[in-house]
Amino acid sequence: MIRSEETICAPATAVGGAIAIIRISGPQSINICEKIFFPLDKSIKLIDQKGFTILFGEIRSGEVIIDEVLVSIFRAPHSYTGEDGVEISCHASPYIQQTIMGLLIRNGAVAAQPGEFTRRAFLNGKMDLLQAEAVADIIASSTEAAHKVAINQMRGGFSQEISRLRSQLLHFASLIELELDFGEDDVEFADRVKLKEIIINTKSLADKLASSFILGNAVKNGIPVTITGKPNSGKSTLMNTLLMEEKAIVSEIPGTTRDSIEDTIVIEGFEYRFIDTAGLRETSDVIENLGIKKTHEKINQASVVLFIDDIFDTAESVNIRVSKIRDLIRNTGKRLFILINKIDQDTEGKAKKMSGRIKLEEDDNLLFISAKERTGIDELKNKLGEIVMKEKLSSDSVIITNIRHYEAMLRVSESLDRVLTGLENHIPSDLIAIDIRQAIHYLGEITGEITTDEILGNIFKNFCIGK
Amino acid sequence: MIRSEETICAPATAVGGAIAIIRISGPQSINICEKIFFPLDKSIKLIDQKGFTILFGEIRSGEVIIDEVLVSIFRAPHSYTGEDGVEISCHASPYIQQTIMGLLIRNGAVAAQPGEFTRRAFLNGKMDLLQAEAVADIIASSTEAAHKVAINQMRGGFSQEISRLRSQLLHFASLIELELDFGEDDVEFADRVKLKEIIINTKSLADKLASSFILGNAVKNGIPVTITGKPNSGKSTLMNTLLMEEKAIVSEIPGTTRDSIEDTIVIEGFEYRFIDTAGLRETSDVIENLGIKKTHEKINQASVVLFIDDIFDTAESVNIRVSKIRDLIRNTGKRLFILINKIDQDTEGKAKKMSGRIKLEEDDNLLFISAKERTGIDELKNKLGEIVMKEKLSSDSVIITNIRHYEAMLRVSESLDRVLTGLENHIPSDLIAIDIRQAIHYLGEITGEITTDEILGNIFKNFCIGK
Repeated sequence: MIRSEETICAPATAVGGAIAIIRISGPQSINICEKIFFPLDKSIKLIDQKGFTILFGEIRSGEVIIDEVLVSIFRAPHSYTGEDGVEISCHASPYIQQTIMGLLIRNGAVAAQPGEFTRRAFLNGKMDLLQAEAVADIIASSTEAAHKVAINQMRGGFSQEISRLRSQLLHFASLIELELDFGEDDVEFADRVKLKEIIINTKSLADKLASSFILGNAVKNGIPVTITGKPNSGKSTLMNTLLMEEKAIVSEIPGTTRDSIEDTIVIEGFEYRFIDTAGLRETSDVIENLGIKKTHEKINQASVVLFIDDIFDTAESVNIRVSKIRDLIRNTGKRLFILINKIDQDTEGKAKKMSGRIKLEEDDNLLFISAKERTGIDELKNKLGEIVMKEKLSSDSVIITNIRHYEAMLRVSESLDRVLTGLENHIPSDLIAIDIRQAIHYLGEITGEITTDEILGNIFKNFCIGK
Repeated sequence: MIRSEETICAPATAVGGAIAIIRISGPQSINICEKIFFPLDKSIKLIDQKGFTILFGEIRSGEVIIDEVLVSIFRAPHSYTGEDGVEISCHASPYIQQTIMGLLIRNGAVAAQPGEFTRRAFLNGKMDLLQAEAVADIIASSTEAAHKVAINQMRGGFSQEISRLRSQLLHFASLIELELDFGEDDVEFADRVKLKEIIINTKSLADKLASSFILGNAVKNGIPVTITGKPNSGKSTLMNTLLMEEKAIVSEIPGTTRDSIEDTIVIEGFEYRFIDTAGLRETSDVIENLGIKKTHEKINQASVVLFIDDIFDTAESVNIRVSKIRDLIRNTGKRLFILINKIDQDTEGKAKKMSGRIKLEEDDNLLFISAKERTGIDELKNKLGEIVMKEKLSSDSVIITNIRHYEAMLRVSESLDRVLTGLENHIPSDLIAIDIRQAIHYLGEITGEITTDEILGNIFKNFCIGK
């Protein structure tokens, strides 16, 4: 799909609101708008305007006035796409937007594909592929952490890291290839000891980036949490306590309330997603009501398991229940929280009696709480926060949040592994060079220096229309 | 609520999409943005920019980059509100929007109330109250007819009509008041015969406008339709046939599909709303399943009743069922459609036999259809269209779509009625003048020449935030 000779158009704002933006990009942008836009000052022509100028006027369909709008003019290459472009800011009525889109299309524009504006920005060299992908992440970012990583990537932080790896490898590859030119002479321009060191460093950097994907995934998609435990121990009260506070914070600024807030909380900029909480709130116990298979599924999806019981149960019973869960999560890296609820009703010091007798393993957290009275909730949140905070995000952290980058990085690491083995076994230089070129290739795929229409298609199809 | 010395801010676009606009208006707009916006070209200051200029740069919170944005500058009085203003076009991430809103508020702006931008535009004389109200109608307009009436109103069509009525009355009132100045002299500057004629004309215009509210309401809120009839006669198939076509048309242009499309169809620019269709599609018959009370309610809400039966029933049975409905709608102005379905299965000429034997009253429509095969559906749509098309909308029609205007217009008419009675009964001129002034007052309330904070509050509270 290469059609940069065409002029594309799309609504760039969501349905609803007061104002809508319709975006046009391509060589005919200004000419097409000239036909449907009539500025207040009749002597003005769009085609004479320089970039970064706004005009007020009417969109008309024949004699019929469709709307009073603001039109913003952009001139190649000083635009998002690098092409000539226009943004029409109109009233956010569905009818008006449809009519303006129809007018643009009738006058020669075509409706943009998802992500086509950003795809053009990439193809016109305004950004590399990493930066283009970051645009989608920025739009989707709903937490500070996700935003921080995405904006760093959009501004080229990750690209710099990749290009550093790549230039080290290119240097090494060219030295080796130089040796090959000398054929049988058995020269070694590339100091094998020193270069092995460089490969080890490069590989360790690639591995570090690959392993950052765990954190990156938590940043981008949130940390999946499931709540399980004894029936009537207060699971839904706990959920409500955690979620209601969140709602109050988010809805402080009018007009920015999120739709799906019900099932996520944000702690220190990270999002914790509660798995299948609708079901949880209806049925009172995952383990008992859903059967062992569903429980497996739910616990498999989670990174954090909150097991809840209350002070009216015995430590022995808690231990038995917990041991079942521990069997499921052993060696998975999942974290277990044992929460003993209802300490507001603890008139007989039950909590104290239980606390020494509940068996804990390393990394388990035991907390006595009252979901109803909010006792211990802050501590719970702090402990949840610590899970990711161990790997603290600095403002310029380079982290992989995208599975495409993660897979490419794994392949880089594999190729470099083969290089190391080759060096140790004194394998012919031409074979080593192939593996290095392979690693360079995968790095190039990440930034888009090497790409195919299929890769681009896959990346941009997940963008929204108008971006 | 007068606070024009404050600078207000609000997101003006809906949640979602690729781009979001945050709108700022008020004396400190540019100063506040200067503190958080850093243009690409560091030598540039916002404060030095003229209106209708766009700048590219970063929004920062301290050292942290929040987003790369476009900033549009507007200078009083050449802006929507008539005040200095800024529009920040950022990536449509909830986090980014919240952060930018937070930054603006921390630097001295306040979050805008619903409709506050348009309220300021009104208070600053950029538009009258009719035009301000039309802005909300334009945003809500989802059909050609609703849009046409709203845009005509925004552009002052209705205001002109009102001011014509008002100036006629003012002329009359001042002549009468002149007579009063002469006290006992019993002069008549105002020719009673001629002036009676003017009052009659003015009242007839006011009545015409008031009565246009029926059409106006249909334009703005759609025409309520209910479907009832024999069980299993094909009500849900008919609904689906009508609605599915509509969906196909609306979803042609990507990104503009409406959410609530399921229960409305648009014919010739008018919206037909199906009442409680969710229920209709589940239960198979309104009359039989819901009991007489609910049926009353549904038919009361509707302007159009589609009664559906099929060719396997007898004309006698149809007549009995229809007579029940006719009892409910007699003298209400509601329109009845008798639809005999399943003519695709009519191998024995049943339709022909029935057609002469079904009793029709004036204005009833009898149609033989096949909802499954689409037979007769176009004719049904044409007939539905004719209901409002009788009062054809011309592109400059002045129509009342707002109950506030309707009520004011009724009061104008009542006052003029009293004037006419007064003239006939030779009531003292000072009392007649009071009634004329009353009519002038109500006209002034419509355009906002006479207004109170309470009226304004009621009008603007229904606006969306950011408009």
